[in-house]
Amino acid sequence: MTREEKFMHEAISLSRLGMGQNAGGPFGCIVVKDNQIVGRGNNCVTSHNDPTAHAEVMAIRDACKNLNSFQLDDCEIFTSCEPCPMCLGAIYWARPKAIYYANTREDAARIGFDDSMIYDEMSKPMHIRKIPIIHMNKEEAMKVFEEWIDKTDKTDY
Amino acid sequence: MTREEKFMHEAISLSRLGMGQNAGGPFGCIVVKDNQIVGRGNNCVTSHNDPTAHAEVMAIRDACKNLNSFQLDDCEIFTSCEPCPMCLGAIYWARPKAIYYANTREDAARIGFDDSMIYDEMSKPMHIRKIPIIHMNKEEAMKVFEEWIDKTDKTDY
Repeated sequence: MTREEKFMHEAISLSRLGMGQNAGGPFGCIVVKDNQIVGRGNNCVTSHNDPTAHAEVMAIRDACKNLNSFQLDDCEIFTSCEPCPMCLGAIYWARPKAIYYANTREDAARIGFDDSMIYDEMSKPMHIRKIPIIHMNKEEAMKVFEEWIDKTDKTDY
Repeated sequence: MTREEKFMHEAISLSRLGMGQNAGGPFGCIVVKDNQIVGRGNNCVTSHNDPTAHAEVMAIRDACKNLNSFQLDDCEIFTSCEPCPMCLGAIYWARPKAIYYANTREDAARIGFDDSMIYDEMSKPMHIRKIPIIHMNKEEAMKVFEEWIDKTDKTDY
């Protein structure tokens, strides 16, 4: 077994464990740094009443807490299924060095998780999306962005 | 002031408040149901060491906790800036009825938040993305999906 296979096996084991505990859907994820597991997560959407509690989000939050950082520099993400748009976005904000996945978004769709639909919506023009999205009050909001630019004690990220 | 302007003003006020408290970036969001605010959030990435702690994710988690549900049926989201891909994904999973936003992804990019880059990455073929993404071990992971299909006591969502 390669190191990657070993770590993916851990992520898949978490997906089975969470499912067995009725935590949520059959998805698991680990974060690895310097060949050590620094974060673990499994889907907890239905048990936590939290639609953001996907395996990747849980694992990223766990790793960031353990590493005391809001970045996952030099980390690798092993996830039992291709990340949905929310999780892929979370991964990009966390900035790990690589992502490994096993099941695909099409596999997820076949068992009832509609990641593919959300990927399709992302790239559609706003006016034809399933959830209406309306632009308003830009002038008031822009003032806060201007205040951010002028702020001298901010933490950039 | 329309009801929408009133609610957007609340979201923008939260963006300014969080910035002033050095919680994180200048972003605020509220969730509204039946004309009542049921969830609030502002960006807490740097103060919580959590790259997923965007205003929308915080507000969705708060609303779901308050409503004791993993769905935001009949809710409206008011966010001071166009949701990034992570947050738009979170919103789709939460299934509200509408989204209102003020600043745009281009405005966010101009003050240093690279939402646009992540949107671009989402639609690229995997092999040319900035973060390498590698497919492996599908056979082992697929067994867990098959177990999910056969599971008789699962909570679908």
